[in-house]
Amino acid sequence: MNPASRYEGVIPPVVTPRTAGGKIDLPSLERLLQHLLNGGVDGLFVLGSSAEVPYMTNDERDMVVKTAAGVNAGQVPLIVGASEQTTNRVIEEGRRVVRDGADALVVTAPFYALTNAQETETHFRTIHSAIDMPVFAYDIPVRTHFKLPTDLLVNLGDDGVIAGVKDSSGDDVAFRQLLMAASGIRDFDIFTGHEIVVDGALLAGAQGVVPGLGNVDPSGYARLFGAAKAGEWRKAADEQTRLADLFNIVSTPKPGRVSAGAAGLGAFKTALMLLGIIDSNVMSVPMLALDDDETDRIKEILVRNGLL
Amino acid sequence: MNPASRYEGVIPPVVTPRTAGGKIDLPSLERLLQHLLNGGVDGLFVLGSSAEVPYMTNDERDMVVKTAAGVNAGQVPLIVGASEQTTNRVIEEGRRVVRDGADALVVTAPFYALTNAQETETHFRTIHSAIDMPVFAYDIPVRTHFKLPTDLLVNLGDDGVIAGVKDSSGDDVAFRQLLMAASGIRDFDIFTGHEIVVDGALLAGAQGVVPGLGNVDPSGYARLFGAAKAGEWRKAADEQTRLADLFNIVSTPKPGRVSAGAAGLGAFKTALMLLGIIDSNVMSVPMLALDDDETDRIKEILVRNGLL
Amino acid sequence: MNPASRYEGVIPPVVTPRTAGGKIDLPSLERLLQHLLNGGVDGLFVLGSSAEVPYMTNDERDMVVKTAAGVNAGQVPLIVGASEQTTNRVIEEGRRVVRDGADALVVTAPFYALTNAQETETHFRTIHSAIDMPVFAYDIPVRTHFKLPTDLLVNLGDDGVIAGVKDSSGDDVAFRQLLMAASGIRDFDIFTGHEIVVDGALLAGAQGVVPGLGNVDPSGYARLFGAAKAGEWRKAADEQTRLADLFNIVSTPKPGRVSAGAAGLGAFKTALMLLGIIDSNVMSVPMLALDDDETDRIKEILVRNGLL
Amino acid sequence: MNPASRYEGVIPPVVTPRTAGGKIDLPSLERLLQHLLNGGVDGLFVLGSSAEVPYMTNDERDMVVKTAAGVNAGQVPLIVGASEQTTNRVIEEGRRVVRDGADALVVTAPFYALTNAQETETHFRTIHSAIDMPVFAYDIPVRTHFKLPTDLLVNLGDDGVIAGVKDSSGDDVAFRQLLMAASGIRDFDIFTGHEIVVDGALLAGAQGVVPGLGNVDPSGYARLFGAAKAGEWRKAADEQTRLADLFNIVSTPKPGRVSAGAAGLGAFKTALMLLGIIDSNVMSVPMLALDDDETDRIKEILVRNGLL
Repeated sequence: MNPASRYEGVIPPVVTPRTAGGKIDLPSLERLLQHLLNGGVDGLFVLGSSAEVPYMTNDERDMVVKTAAGVNAGQVPLIVGASEQTTNRVIEEGRRVVRDGADALVVTAPFYALTNAQETETHFRTIHSAIDMPVFAYDIPVRTHFKLPTDLLVNLGDDGVIAGVKDSSGDDVAFRQLLMAASGIRDFDIFTGHEIVVDGALLAGAQGVVPGLGNVDPSGYARLFGAAKAGEWRKAADEQTRLADLFNIVSTPKPGRVSAGAAGLGAFKTALMLLGIIDSNVMSVPMLALDDDETDRIKEILVRNGLL
Repeated sequence: MNPASRYEGVIPPVVTPRTAGGKIDLPSLERLLQHLLNGGVDGLFVLGSSAEVPYMTNDERDMVVKTAAGVNAGQVPLIVGASEQTTNRVIEEGRRVVRDGADALVVTAPFYALTNAQETETHFRTIHSAIDMPVFAYDIPVRTHFKLPTDLLVNLGDDGVIAGVKDSSGDDVAFRQLLMAASGIRDFDIFTGHEIVVDGALLAGAQGVVPGLGNVDPSGYARLFGAAKAGEWRKAADEQTRLADLFNIVSTPKPGRVSAGAAGLGAFKTALMLLGIIDSNVMSVPMLALDDDETDRIKEILVRNGLL
Repeated sequence: MNPASRYEGVIPPVVTPRTAGGKIDLPSLERLLQHLLNGGVDGLFVLGSSAEVPYMTNDERDMVVKTAAGVNAGQVPLIVGASEQTTNRVIEEGRRVVRDGADALVVTAPFYALTNAQETETHFRTIHSAIDMPVFAYDIPVRTHFKLPTDLLVNLGDDGVIAGVKDSSGDDVAFRQLLMAASGIRDFDIFTGHEIVVDGALLAGAQGVVPGLGNVDPSGYARLFGAAKAGEWRKAADEQTRLADLFNIVSTPKPGRVSAGAAGLGAFKTALMLLGIIDSNVMSVPMLALDDDETDRIKEILVRNGLL
Repeated sequence: MNPASRYEGVIPPVVTPRTAGGKIDLPSLERLLQHLLNGGVDGLFVLGSSAEVPYMTNDERDMVVKTAAGVNAGQVPLIVGASEQTTNRVIEEGRRVVRDGADALVVTAPFYALTNAQETETHFRTIHSAIDMPVFAYDIPVRTHFKLPTDLLVNLGDDGVIAGVKDSSGDDVAFRQLLMAASGIRDFDIFTGHEIVVDGALLAGAQGVVPGLGNVDPSGYARLFGAAKAGEWRKAADEQTRLADLFNIVSTPKPGRVSAGAAGLGAFKTALMLLGIIDSNVMSVPMLALDDDETDRIKEILVRNGLL
């Protein structure tokens, strides 16, 4: 792995617990953050897609960042999503969360907008000029509907505009090409956002992973990363296989009952509730929480994987 | 047409002029609003996609709504987009623009979110409960990547949750089905957002049109609507054919030079600049403005259509 | 409408009846062809998507074309789909169906292939050079996943490579632009493939319609076309509204029970079976036929529209 | 790896050389087949997407299968694509290529058709009943626009309907889930079709790879597979990194000059021409061949990877 890495390892996208009444549940959030730090994570990513950030008001976003900054107290990097529609709104958002305690920002391509590569380059360069803070590009075309081009990412990395990439593109070929093209850039760290292909990603040279499932089993991901770092690839693959089975919790919702957004995040929250780490699996409006049947199926998967 | 209509006719989505320095250009905006009112429009829609709303900060949004409310002074309905990622953010946005002077709101499906029909229903019902103001559903899957289902729109209309639909779905079959299914609902008005199929939409029973091109030629659309209302369909079609030729301004950008978003809106702004109504064709960051060559081609189209 | 039109009016895409055992049902096909000719159609289109052409072997395709040529006996143009993956296969297919009796061919963009505009141009020019027969371009991106560009169609029309377009693109804006751009080309006729927007299409200048629903109610479409031709647009729109209600037969299949392909075509076949024109609503392998409940719902729609 | 595997290792999808005049170039094809066998491949896959199968007439397809059967003479399994629009056409095609010498078939979901999971299940079961020969499911949604569901594949594998999967889905998460779900099925072998993620695929348990690039460097893939089989994962990853650099030949075409289909396959053919294995890089109509500039860039890549 890159000796010049500033970031590496397991950086889970922290989910945002809510109370039964729908408010941010700060005690649950604090317990979750502590659970992750105890599990050996290498960073914390708040206000990501897994945090339900599009569903949070600005006041709620501030509250979560401040809480994370407080619990973390500088132990690991606190990386924060500045998740807004376009450039000037991202800058406003980014400045606010930096005041709240962010150590680095995560920024997507513009969304709702109908954009292209040239505009996306301007977008990242303008944000970089406006805010003195490392910025990760977040490639998530399933939500933005724009794939960040590999040559643009390399170009922005070369110029120090971005500090790395969180890849949730689902495009494993482009991901390998990015790893190769960026392998010589100093201070440029590449993370996969896909929970169940981490062994291959690390073998190919990725610096780490941002796994939503890492909320549930941070130690498992820490062991997987440790094995890979030690060159014990069979051990890493076996740990990945176990985590991939655990990942089946996201397939427990009955077909069509909840949205694609609510299924995965709802499963993480439900597992955390079953583990006693957060109090409720309530989702942000308008998403539905998983129901009792779905919760029972998650329980089975946690049990067969030794977490319960 | 529906005798119970509260809204009908031509309601252009007002573009948002910027100065050379990138600020909102209020004098240009005031001239544009007056140009539209003089042109005989039946309503004003601000903070729509054509207004570059995803690129505007909240302060800019407030400024535009207040300016429109001031110039309009109650002459026609002032309809305002509450364009945010999900329910609770739309409610905050909606309340703010209502304080700024909105007479009705325009709301899309959630975006960036991975949503479904059930969540979208909750979304609109929750917003309706929170804000006492007519809400139009804005169906624009090219941006939200979720087509509002016809039966959901009819259901929400029947229950008085939405006051109508602005359809930019590009799905003419679904649009006809919506017109038929909703024909019996009181106080439910359906507008097409497509500039060049208005004659057919009105013949099929739509209440009106929200044409971006109406910024440039409001009188033309007023004539088209008047002819349709009088049952003079050949005259309406001929006016539509002329406007469809004018609409070719959106195809003047060189292939690949600007984004899909910047092409159409940039053409409207450039035409308005050439007509002397606004001072500059500057676009919001990170979009590029049309260049001199593209401007010359727009000039030719304005000339051959008798606008210059 | 274009005085130079060679083709105009109602040209239904003839469905292909099968026996309970899955063979082509020639007696039913003959009755259906006679039903259409009696209904006043202006042409017959066999081996289209509505004919389940992708599901037919070459022997079956030959049998259908020969049967149609026999029943038609030159009364109206017999237009035949040459539906193959790429150029050389289309040429082989086209030559065969010409020997079987085709008067004109219908050809799509390459499919399964990953193509572009330049290749598609070569595709049509090569086919035109190889077969001395009018060729309609069939724009159906929902199946080919490639939208035929308007400027390419105009270019091919200008050069006499294609005789017209059957538009099932679902893109009403591009359709209007095509109608305008092609209005001056001699012997170039444009048909919409969308059953429920025909009034608007004709008002905008289309030469006619290729309606799958025309299998069920050819006289209704003939009346709609006649009213439009006479400039009686309100009457045309009213007939279209009635036909749009009849088109609801395609929405009778229970959600998810049959594929999108089987739903519409299965509804047409089921209605024809209920009308006594064909013997069975059996679909090609692997498609399911509509079931008894779905058939009952279609019966209700036929009754309320006076067809049963 | 699965001790019960019937198929494993490197099975390149053989490209189909054409002469300058556009005919199948049998001497070049024979040299290519020999080059692959000499390179240590474990099987030959003809009439795949990489063979330009959608562009070949039936006579051409027969000629290629017979030639491959002759050169191979039973040394390795000869796997043949039966690439047709739907079930009955696949059965006709499959029977023909079996007579030509195929040892196993490769079958996609229906295409051009608008299908679903239930129909696709019937499709594979019907084909299996009709032809007594191992059938691989070929998952290539970029061409068929239908992703084969993991549970369907597992179900068909359990019932002995399919002998395995060639995965070109581009969905690495679903691929891992398939590997896990299918790990206990006897005689069920899973191959990735993606050239540059083979190390990770093998680490995760895949039986092998079907690499288009394997036409150019079969020995490289044989070394990669050998290292993986020996558990030397770092060595496998290093070989993969080298091959991923070689894969950059597919990015040499100038943006927009040739189609996506012609770019990759044209690059493989051009490299084989430069290596002296085939005589020309001519593509099937209507595809363009790579030009001199593009050929020069491919030459550079071959040189820097030690192949020239």
